[in-house]
Amino acid sequence: MINQMYKEMLQGKSVIREQSEFAAELGKEIGFENVFDYSLGNPSVPVHDDYTKIMFDLLETKTSSQLHGYSPSLGIQEVRAKVAKSLSERFGMDYEAKHIFMASGAAGALAHAIRCVTVPGDEVIIFAPYFPEYFQYIGKTGAVIKVVPADTATFQINFDAFSEVMNDKVQAVLINTPNNPSGIAYSDETIKKLTGLLEEKQREYGHDIFLISDEPYREIVFDGMQIPYPSKYYNNSISCYSFSKSLSLPGERIGYLAVNPKATDADIVAVMCGQISRGIGHNCPASSIQLAVAEILDKTSDLSVYETNMNLIYDKLVSLGFETIRPGGTFYIFPKALEEDANAFCMKARKYNLILVPSDSFGVKGYFRMAYCIDTEKVVRSLEALERFVKEEYAGA
Amino acid sequence: MINQMYKEMLQGKSVIREQSEFAAELGKEIGFENVFDYSLGNPSVPVHDDYTKIMFDLLETKTSSQLHGYSPSLGIQEVRAKVAKSLSERFGMDYEAKHIFMASGAAGALAHAIRCVTVPGDEVIIFAPYFPEYFQYIGKTGAVIKVVPADTATFQINFDAFSEVMNDKVQAVLINTPNNPSGIAYSDETIKKLTGLLEEKQREYGHDIFLISDEPYREIVFDGMQIPYPSKYYNNSISCYSFSKSLSLPGERIGYLAVNPKATDADIVAVMCGQISRGIGHNCPASSIQLAVAEILDKTSDLSVYETNMNLIYDKLVSLGFETIRPGGTFYIFPKALEEDANAFCMKARKYNLILVPSDSFGVKGYFRMAYCIDTEKVVRSLEALERFVKEEYAGA
Repeated sequence: MINQMYKEMLQGKSVIREQSEFAAELGKEIGFENVFDYSLGNPSVPVHDDYTKIMFDLLETKTSSQLHGYSPSLGIQEVRAKVAKSLSERFGMDYEAKHIFMASGAAGALAHAIRCVTVPGDEVIIFAPYFPEYFQYIGKTGAVIKVVPADTATFQINFDAFSEVMNDKVQAVLINTPNNPSGIAYSDETIKKLTGLLEEKQREYGHDIFLISDEPYREIVFDGMQIPYPSKYYNNSISCYSFSKSLSLPGERIGYLAVNPKATDADIVAVMCGQISRGIGHNCPASSIQLAVAEILDKTSDLSVYETNMNLIYDKLVSLGFETIRPGGTFYIFPKALEEDANAFCMKARKYNLILVPSDSFGVKGYFRMAYCIDTEKVVRSLEALERFVKEEYAGA
Repeated sequence: MINQMYKEMLQGKSVIREQSEFAAELGKEIGFENVFDYSLGNPSVPVHDDYTKIMFDLLETKTSSQLHGYSPSLGIQEVRAKVAKSLSERFGMDYEAKHIFMASGAAGALAHAIRCVTVPGDEVIIFAPYFPEYFQYIGKTGAVIKVVPADTATFQINFDAFSEVMNDKVQAVLINTPNNPSGIAYSDETIKKLTGLLEEKQREYGHDIFLISDEPYREIVFDGMQIPYPSKYYNNSISCYSFSKSLSLPGERIGYLAVNPKATDADIVAVMCGQISRGIGHNCPASSIQLAVAEILDKTSDLSVYETNMNLIYDKLVSLGFETIRPGGTFYIFPKALEEDANAFCMKARKYNLILVPSDSFGVKGYFRMAYCIDTEKVVRSLEALERFVKEEYAGA
């Protein structure tokens, strides 16, 4: 018989998707060039040229079984070795191939990481504002999600709230920096304070607590800033990475999990992931895609447009009186709405062809997210619409 | 803390992998050309030329976001439509795009199908001999696997045993034809009898029973035979397909699930699969690979070598006195060992550089599997070794 749980899940529709579908409908009506669609985090810059060149080269020079043959569930050994070397050189870590598991993007890495370090019923802490899909990637493992409310003054960590949520059932803490939706990167101070507390709690509870770090936006950082690499600060750490944003190939589903060599059972986490993968019938990311990205681990697409867009939008928001924090990276900004009900605010914005995402599903009320992975020319035109929207609807703002 | 269940799984090693690893070690020692490795079902023929041409073409003509952009969790809409059209034309079905879910090979399709039509604790019937990975793809969903013992006279279905195993907790029945490891294709009569019984049992128990058909070997059929398409015979049916064998690209993890348009809730099964995919962080097969195979749905690699190999091996086995059934397809044959203990038989064969897989892990004792997806030249040389093996070790056979 049809599984009712999955059937019932079909009722719930994400507000991001709803806004995106509205944008698509509106585009058909008034022309897509006139819709200022800030709903989806879909990279707008093209894939790195080298990716295309390398794929041509692989197709021309590799044998069919080298390129398309079975990959081990853990990923192709030479690919894992290259990822380990690149990460180690860059962040001063001691990763070896055995610490790397090739995954279907950061989503796959996260879902595997949670299954590795929890059993159903264990608690996992996440911090608001958060990526709503965490309720899928974590919730569906059987782990119980505990949310630490946001520190809306900075969108760093609300440590008082964290201490209240923390308890001995917590087996993992998930962070996402630079953050979707806030665009904020955790400071060195934040990471140090968090990992210090986790060390303390490990001693207090007498069990490991894993820090799982979701890092798809690691390469999109503004103002020439160096952001902390969380695994550098804490032994029981797992980094989850995706090439979706850095190389602009989200559809190819390619990323990895890297377990800190100093973590408990570090040598078997990747092998466990391979077992988990078999159990969901997934097995591995596409072999040719693994081989291609392995050749350009330290390259990115030209991501500068995101910083250009951020500056334009941030300056305009500030000039219009919005309360907003300047993003340290990603392609998101998370201003406070001009009325308490962010949903009402975003519905009114539709009239100006501005497609914004209200913040409720990110675990914070009264804010909205703009995903500015769109053309700068469109950003410029959208800011005129934003100005009209604010002046006409919130004259007293 | 590290999940002990997955940690403990690392102890169990598949005998197929053990034999394959022995073959690799032996190859280093005596040269790979001298190892007759029949252990792994890894396609030996190259990918279809058109796949490579199409991938070049896609890389040259598509925009980055068309080729590498997010694919919906259910698969790219136009790819699903093409699969539906191809299947409908070929098998006289009425599939539409909404009935197709693009999956990570047949493994991914199976794991999703089981989650769609069972809840943990429900029973799923499989038939010996079976592919051992079913215990992963099915067992890890929480469903309970019930095995119907083999009919070793024909390797069709043992219906007496089936009736004994059948009960009202059974929500799904999984078949694999042509079969790994037996190489046997179920006859029209077998499928009719099975689906007739399932219809009866649905009425008797008052609930749906889904027939899930694992079809990665659908295109590898011998003697110009037409094999039955199981979904044609039964409304509550789901076909699970992989391009791994037909196009020789197992590492690319591409296949699909097709739910019979006449099945209960046929219109929502693919959408449910999309929800399941989110929950495991997998999301979808690689976008470029989806687009490439969609252009060659009705083509296959040159699979004729498998029939050539089968004929050589079958004739030799028969002439040496083996009890074996002529395969109808796949690249497997499943003869009876020359002693009761198939493990002992396969260990002795190692001395002749013959790497065979004992049948115990396929759910039958006393047989062995040969995966003859290797060069014909090597098959010919291996048969000399087989003859020496039989004459020296089993002179009285």
